[in-house]
Amino acid sequence: MTNPSHQPIGIFDSGVGGLTVAAGIKKLLPHESLLYFGDTRHAPYGDKSQETVQRYSQQITRFLIERQCKAVVIACNTASALAFEHLRHAFPGLTIINVIDPVVNHVGRHINHKVGVIGTRATIGSGAYRKKLRRLNPKLHVASAPTPLLVAIAEEGFVNTNISREAIATYLGSKKFAEVSSLILGCTHFPLLQREIEAYFAGRAKVVDSPDLVAHQLRHDLRQARMLADHPQPNYRFVVSEKTPNFQRTAQMFFGEKLELEEVQL
Amino acid sequence: MTNPSHQPIGIFDSGVGGLTVAAGIKKLLPHESLLYFGDTRHAPYGDKSQETVQRYSQQITRFLIERQCKAVVIACNTASALAFEHLRHAFPGLTIINVIDPVVNHVGRHINHKVGVIGTRATIGSGAYRKKLRRLNPKLHVASAPTPLLVAIAEEGFVNTNISREAIATYLGSKKFAEVSSLILGCTHFPLLQREIEAYFAGRAKVVDSPDLVAHQLRHDLRQARMLADHPQPNYRFVVSEKTPNFQRTAQMFFGEKLELEEVQL
Repeated sequence: MTNPSHQPIGIFDSGVGGLTVAAGIKKLLPHESLLYFGDTRHAPYGDKSQETVQRYSQQITRFLIERQCKAVVIACNTASALAFEHLRHAFPGLTIINVIDPVVNHVGRHINHKVGVIGTRATIGSGAYRKKLRRLNPKLHVASAPTPLLVAIAEEGFVNTNISREAIATYLGSKKFAEVSSLILGCTHFPLLQREIEAYFAGRAKVVDSPDLVAHQLRHDLRQARMLADHPQPNYRFVVSEKTPNFQRTAQMFFGEKLELEEVQL
Repeated sequence: MTNPSHQPIGIFDSGVGGLTVAAGIKKLLPHESLLYFGDTRHAPYGDKSQETVQRYSQQITRFLIERQCKAVVIACNTASALAFEHLRHAFPGLTIINVIDPVVNHVGRHINHKVGVIGTRATIGSGAYRKKLRRLNPKLHVASAPTPLLVAIAEEGFVNTNISREAIATYLGSKKFAEVSSLILGCTHFPLLQREIEAYFAGRAKVVDSPDLVAHQLRHDLRQARMLADHPQPNYRFVVSEKTPNFQRTAQMFFGEKLELEEVQL
């Protein structure tokens, strides 16, 4: 029998934005092999129905299991909000991590003030962060708003421009975010804007490092299950359901280093 | 036999942006019934392969024909660039209009200077406008650039803001657009930004009214085929492959008036 600790960690997203999460996992767990799946053919999930997102997520999880993944990370806020429970029921016994719970557990425990959440329209509309934060800590004041233009700004590489500064100031200057002490970046694209958002707050609020929190949760779960790897040479594969030159370019921006995408059909 | 002139005009796009074209057609041809199909389940087409865009376009055209459409307008630059010839072969005898040729025929004949084209990465990358303009008028100087952030700015309603002004100035301030005498808006979202783009040029360049040119081509073709309608009360239907509150909101912005989306499965 193969040693499960040598098997890769499966990570999926609707596109290549989830590579910011993969980068956080690689940083904390440098011995782990990673198999990333970006469902670029169906991206973005943000405007799709719950049933559609659940169906795609289930197909991808099956693909990752067939390729021997020992755990699956949903590196997509929309799928985390709409399909996590569905996947837990569809794949009992599988270690599945979503990108929302580790952040909620950290922020809900450590903060007793006002928390802000920004993300795509679908993620904010689902109320997933708000509901989970309030369940953990009913005293928490949660302010949330969709910031879809920031998604496009990150994707198009308009980071550190007047446009990104204007958009950040427009969205975060909203009255509802006054006096937040922490801001959750509820979209995998936003780590690219983290420094500018921190500069906007100028110390008034802390920006939560979601990829790092997800990686810590994953390490905890793998350690519990005695499945942490000790590879001297981990293996990285990045597959997408539709490959274009633009996805190739954007993928490297989100992962923070060179990589080669492969196209596969589910 | 039914009188074909009483049948609707079918119009399709990957999403609801093509409603700017539908609005242009309604304005010029107020007696015509319209059946609009927005393939929101698969939007955007911009990052999909030619084969995928052709397959979706063919399914939609078949749907429109089954609902008795007398003509089909491809109100999507990506599908016009990647699937028009394919549809002409797949549906011989059908009147099919795309959004590129009427604009190219107008600009290529009337202008002898330098023409600019902006659009999604897929449309510009296809080279469709450049190739067709140069075929018609080899002396024309064509400058083109993808402007994907303007798509998101229009979709998110950030029209007439510092953000739209900065983005327009960043893209159109590029050296390659110096001295263009006309600018083609090669994306169905951009009529929403037309006034700001005109303000940016301050008379130095003319912005081409694509929906109006498409509507004139359609009127010409229907008149030739003796299929122009004379309904006193035309009928409008707007269907999408996936309906969300956001598409409902955005659809009205692009069409310029209230409407109700219906969801259908192909």
